[in-house]
Formats: sequence, C-alpha cells, structure tokens
Amino acid sequence: MHAAPLARIADDRYPARLQACRQVLVEREVAALLVGVGPDLRYLTGFVGEPMERLTLLVIPAKGAAAFVVPQLEAEKASTTPLVRAGAAAVVPFEETDDAALVVADLLASPETAAGSAAWRPIGVSNRLWAMHVLQLQHAMPGRRFQSASAVMRDLRQVKDAEEAELLRLAAQAADRALEAVATGRLVGRTEADVGREIRRRLVDEGHDQADFAIVGSGPNSASPHHDASDREIAAGEPVVLDIGGTRAGYASDTTRTIWVAGDAGIRPDPEFVRVYGIVREANEAATAAVAPGVAAESIDAVARAIIAGAGYGLHFTHRVGHGIGLEVHEDPYMVSGNTTPLAPGMAFSVEPGIYLRGRFGVRLENIVLCAPDGPEVLNRTSLDMRVVRG
Amino acid sequence: MHAAPLARIADDRYPARLQACRQVLVEREVAALLVGVGPDLRYLTGFVGEPMERLTLLVIPAKGAAAFVVPQLEAEKASTTPLVRAGAAAVVPFEETDDAALVVADLLASPETAAGSAAWRPIGVSNRLWAMHVLQLQHAMPGRRFQSASAVMRDLRQVKDAEEAELLRLAAQAADRALEAVATGRLVGRTEADVGREIRRRLVDEGHDQADFAIVGSGPNSASPHHDASDREIAAGEPVVLDIGGTRAGYASDTTRTIWVAGDAGIRPDPEFVRVYGIVREANEAATAAVAPGVAAESIDAVARAIIAGAGYGLHFTHRVGHGIGLEVHEDPYMVSGNTTPLAPGMAFSVEPGIYLRGRFGVRLENIVLCAPDGPEVLNRTSLDMRVVRG
Repeated sequence: MHAAPLARIADDRYPARLQACRQVLVEREVAALLVGVGPDLRYLTGFVGEPMERLTLLVIPAKGAAAFVVPQLEAEKASTTPLVRAGAAAVVPFEETDDAALVVADLLASPETAAGSAAWRPIGVSNRLWAMHVLQLQHAMPGRRFQSASAVMRDLRQVKDAEEAELLRLAAQAADRALEAVATGRLVGRTEADVGREIRRRLVDEGHDQADFAIVGSGPNSASPHHDASDREIAAGEPVVLDIGGTRAGYASDTTRTIWVAGDAGIRPDPEFVRVYGIVREANEAATAAVAPGVAAESIDAVARAIIAGAGYGLHFTHRVGHGIGLEVHEDPYMVSGNTTPLAPGMAFSVEPGIYLRGRFGVRLENIVLCAPDGPEVLNRTSLDMRVVRG
Repeated sequence: MHAAPLARIADDRYPARLQACRQVLVEREVAALLVGVGPDLRYLTGFVGEPMERLTLLVIPAKGAAAFVVPQLEAEKASTTPLVRAGAAAVVPFEETDDAALVVADLLASPETAAGSAAWRPIGVSNRLWAMHVLQLQHAMPGRRFQSASAVMRDLRQVKDAEEAELLRLAAQAADRALEAVATGRLVGRTEADVGREIRRRLVDEGHDQADFAIVGSGPNSASPHHDASDREIAAGEPVVLDIGGTRAGYASDTTRTIWVAGDAGIRPDPEFVRVYGIVREANEAATAAVAPGVAAESIDAVARAIIAGAGYGLHFTHRVGHGIGLEVHEDPYMVSGNTTPLAPGMAFSVEPGIYLRGRFGVRLENIVLCAPDGPEVLNRTSLDMRVVRG
C-alpha cells in the first residue's frame, strides 16, 4: 500500500464555507437550508458518513444560529467536525424515540430564526436527502414550500479551491495506477465480475476510501454505457471498457479506458473498432482543448458531438459528454446541451465521449479535466493511445 | 480470494414479488408506487445500481402495466433485469434533455392507469429516493399526496425467503472471516484508518460486493458508537471496537466485536472493562434467547435494556438494540421501544447491545439473528468470549 499523501481540507475552510452559504441564502431569499448526510454536509461541516434512517441534518436559517440535529449516538462524532469545533454550529441531539422532523420544525419556528424566514420563503433541502426524511419534514412543516438546496450549494461547490483541486489530482492519479495494473494483467478467461473485484481492491490499495464503481464491459457488453460487471468471461479478440472510480480523501475519481484484448494468439483489433476508437479519441481531445474560462458548459458537449456526428455515429453517442466532479462523482456543472453555465477556473468535470454499437461493441475514453486560468489541465495521466494487450 | 458460492435469488421470484406488491397496493388504497434505485428496486426487479442525478424509477400503478422509466443509457441494463425479461414491466427510456418527472406524470395520467388511481389516493415513493427527484415528481403532479412506499414494501421485505436467508448467512460468515483476520493481526501502532482500510479490503477479498463501513474505535474512541476510523494510533492496553459490514450478493453483513489489545507487554484488561464486557455479553445472549415467532420486536430491546439498566449502566446504552437487515444494513423491523411488530419466521435483524462510558471506553457486541420457527438462529459464528489479543 502507498502511504497516503497528507493533502486535506484545512479546518478553517468550513466556517468560511458556512458564511458564504448564508450569504447566498440571504441573496436568494431562501428561509433556511436543511442539509442531510452527503456531499453538501461534508462540504459545509467536514462530517463524513452514510445516510441512514435516522435523520442527521444541518439546519442553516438565513438568520439565527446553525444547528446540527443528530441522533444521540452521532453526537460525539458530530461534535468533532471542524465546523462544530470552530463554534459555528451547535449540536442538537435527539433520542431514539424522538420525532426528529419535529425537532427541526421547532428550531425553525424559534423567534430568533423565524424573524428571518417569512413563511413565503422556501426551505431548501439537500439533493440527496432521502424521501422518507423529506416527507417527514414536509409533514412537520405543513404549508411551507420546499425546493432543492442546489440553487444555493451549486454556486459554492462547483468552483474548487486549491486544496480541492489537489485532492482531485491525487484521486485521479490513484485511479490511473489501479486501471494501469488491471489493464496490463491477466484478463482472458476471467469473468467481468472478477476483474471488477480486482479493480475495487486496487482502488482501495491505492488509498481510496471507497471503490464506488467498476464497470467492466467486455465484447458486446462494451456497447452498454452503464453495464456493471457480469459473469461473462472475457475472451481474446474483443474490446473491454474499464470505467472505474471511487473517492480518496472524499474527492472522486472517474476514468475510462477501452482496451483491445488480443489474447495469446494476438488477434488484431477489428477495423471498425480501430476507426471508432480514433473518432472517440479525437472527440475527447477536441472537447478537452475547448475548455477555457468563459466557454459555455454545453459547448464542450457540442464539440465532441460534432466530431462523432460528422463521422456518422451521432445516434450512437447516447449521453452527455461529461459531468462535474468533486465530493460527488456526478455534480454540477454538467457538460450537456442546455447548460449555458460559463466555465470558470476551478471547475472540474469529466470529458467522456463514447460510441456504442448495440450488440457489437462500444468505446468510451474519459479523463477528468480542470478548467485552469489558461485552459484545460487533464488530471488523468494515462495515455489515450489505443492499447492492444495480451490480456 | 475465495470462490463465491452460487446462491442468488432465482429469476422467477421477481414477477412473484411484483404481484405481491400490487396486491398490497390495492389493499392499502395506494394509487401507485414510485420506486427509485436502491433496495426496494433491487427487491422488485433485480436492478443493481447506485442512485444518481438521472432518475431511474419503477412505476407500479395499482391498475395498469408497470413501467421502468430509465435514462437512455441505462435502457440496455434495465432490459436485462429479471423482472423485465419476464415481461412484467416495460422499459421506458428518456433522453438526456427530457424531464423525467413529466414522463412519470404522463404515465400515471394515462387512461389505463388513472382508472385505478383516484386523485385522493396517495402515491408511495421509495424511502431512499433522493430529495431532488421527490421535489421534481411533486412539482410534476401538483395536488397529489405523497407518502412513503415503506407502508407497502415493509410487509414484503421484512420476512426473508429461504434464498434470502442463505445469502444473509453467507454474508455473515464472510464478515466473520474478515473480522477474525483483523483481530488476530498487528494492531498496535497502526492508525484506526489503516486498520479500517484493511477491513474493507478483506471484506472484498471474502467476496463482498462492497465494504460499506469499518468502524475502528480504539481507547476512548470506543465510547462513540458511530465513530469511524480516525488517525489515532492504537496502543497497547486498550479496547478496540470493530464494527464492520458490507454487502455480498446484495445482502448485508454487520458484526461487531470488542477486543482488548494487550500489546507485547501483555497489559491485562482494566477490571471495569471486564465487568462491562460481561454485562454486554449477557445482554446480547439474553436478547438473542428471547427471539421467537410472536414476540414483539420492542421486547428484544427491553430484555437487553433491563440487564444493562439492572447493572447500573442504563444511561450508557444510548441506542436501540437492533435493526432489521437484508438488502439494507438497516431496515424493518427495528428492535426498539414502541415497535410492537410481532417477530415472524424469516425476520432477520441485529442484536447489538452496547455500553459507552464517554471519554473512557465502550463495548458493543453484535450478531445477526434470524427468527426461525423454533427460536433464534445466530448467523455469525464467531464467539462472544472476551478476547485478549497481543495486537
């Protein structure tokens, strides 16, 4: 195992983030944000955990003190988050038999808080809060309008600071090493699922907190963009799409390479595979080269799409060219038709064009790209050259 | 790596589950269930995946055909789920720039479906559906009442069939092996986080699809029930709580042991630790022995609580004694005061009493127990004996 580099988010960033969040809340005339376990909560408090049936919720009223409502048995852990240690939020624990939604409703009805949150102002809930909690909160606060917190959180999270950019670099390089090791190892005769398990193990060995996905699409399965990893055995003379990722120090990795498995007999790639690979590579490189501050997110998609459509495969590029990445593997900004958000230095996202010929094969090539002041910085370091491996 | 045993859910179970689900829907006068990516969806369709910003939703109207609304790039995968292959649900793909919530609203407004779903009947949404999707669905169907789908799904999922019970057994035994290996290995001088990574790796090596948690609470950290795994170094002469789990073939493992690390100098356990350990063990064994069909879930909690309170530690047992387990690590039925659900053969849940002395130490012992026709079957095979390791 590699020793983990020490980069992490400095503690004093958290109160600063909360303050920035409050400012946007006030500007947008939102009464309060209710932030459940997940990336928004981690971003604001440093709290790392998984959502569960017990409600854990940071309550941020536009006016009044922020409160971290947690089950009693999370109170100790909550009190050690950088935001709470900095005195910027108080921990409000509840017991196993309490109704947590009522605790939240009471907090928002307190005189201090209610003053800043007229009933017509909406309450923002974090995107990933579970339905069971949303419904309970709506039930506890009848008549209040609920909306997504992302209108507020997006502005904060989509531009990465220097520490976040460095964590994304480290995650990308760790995933590169894991993918490299798998691509150069034995593949023929192994099931996709077995290779998937190896990928997950290698991601963890490379310092990932968690391996979140390991798409292994061999032969015709490579034509299904979100294929997982089945019991199909990889054979000589076919392509394999490897799309892998997880989180390292909280920040996500996500990289895809499509390799040709030649086997011991050295079966050369099919000519159409070679042609399609070349088109996808060209689309990836052109879309990456188009990255610069001020360019609309949708135009990165358009650049890749024009190349693939021009080559006659437009109908076979069935997804957007990319997604933002940070604490979530998919987050704002999305590189998709209709998203006119101008890119800004610090935005990080995938560039991952693909062509999928159903029942035959598919090719996808994905890098994470950071928008730097002077253009693209590609965080993945492995080559886009077509790779023919023995497997 | 161990070869994975072949036990899995037979394909023909899925249409049978959907039929049972529809029956409950009609009985409860629910207009439709909207089931997002997660355990409910896996239970009904066999679809395995992670929730994301793109909506994937099984729409089950009380009357009319079930539809599996999926992003275009998931269509291929959705079409291979056992439910769809059996012809029991049709795949309805949408494009990257479509509004998926409107697609769902249109389906529910179709004449065939609307006939069985009078507007006063509520729509059930799966517990884990993300807030962003709940809010979009509510927006697309103004005036409709939304409630949790668990009122329907609970009845189906909390009683495990024979295949599910076997998968829980295999998951428990895999976690036992992982925990055993970690407990007998080197611990002194390693950080909790490093041990946590080893646990995650071992769970995957033992055939888990995914390692979901690896609580390593050493010394005073053992007194925080949901402590994760910090940079604290484990020392000789202190306890360590190891609470580990993940999923294997979709079914969850969850087991906890508290060990005493004696170190090279052989530091014996503190007398109060020995006393507390004995009380927690007694509580675990008595609660387990109380498991039988017809017994109320809350009384399993009460049995453990009475023993711990009787020994004077009642205030330090800060959580319910257990939770159901299956496709989710926490699911119905919960062993908690107020839950009068009678246990039935096939119900599986944790029994995990604990005592936490803040700033000093904590002890928790957790097994997964299956309610069998004639009493408890303990799925974990490792001993509850107090274990003093060199570490």
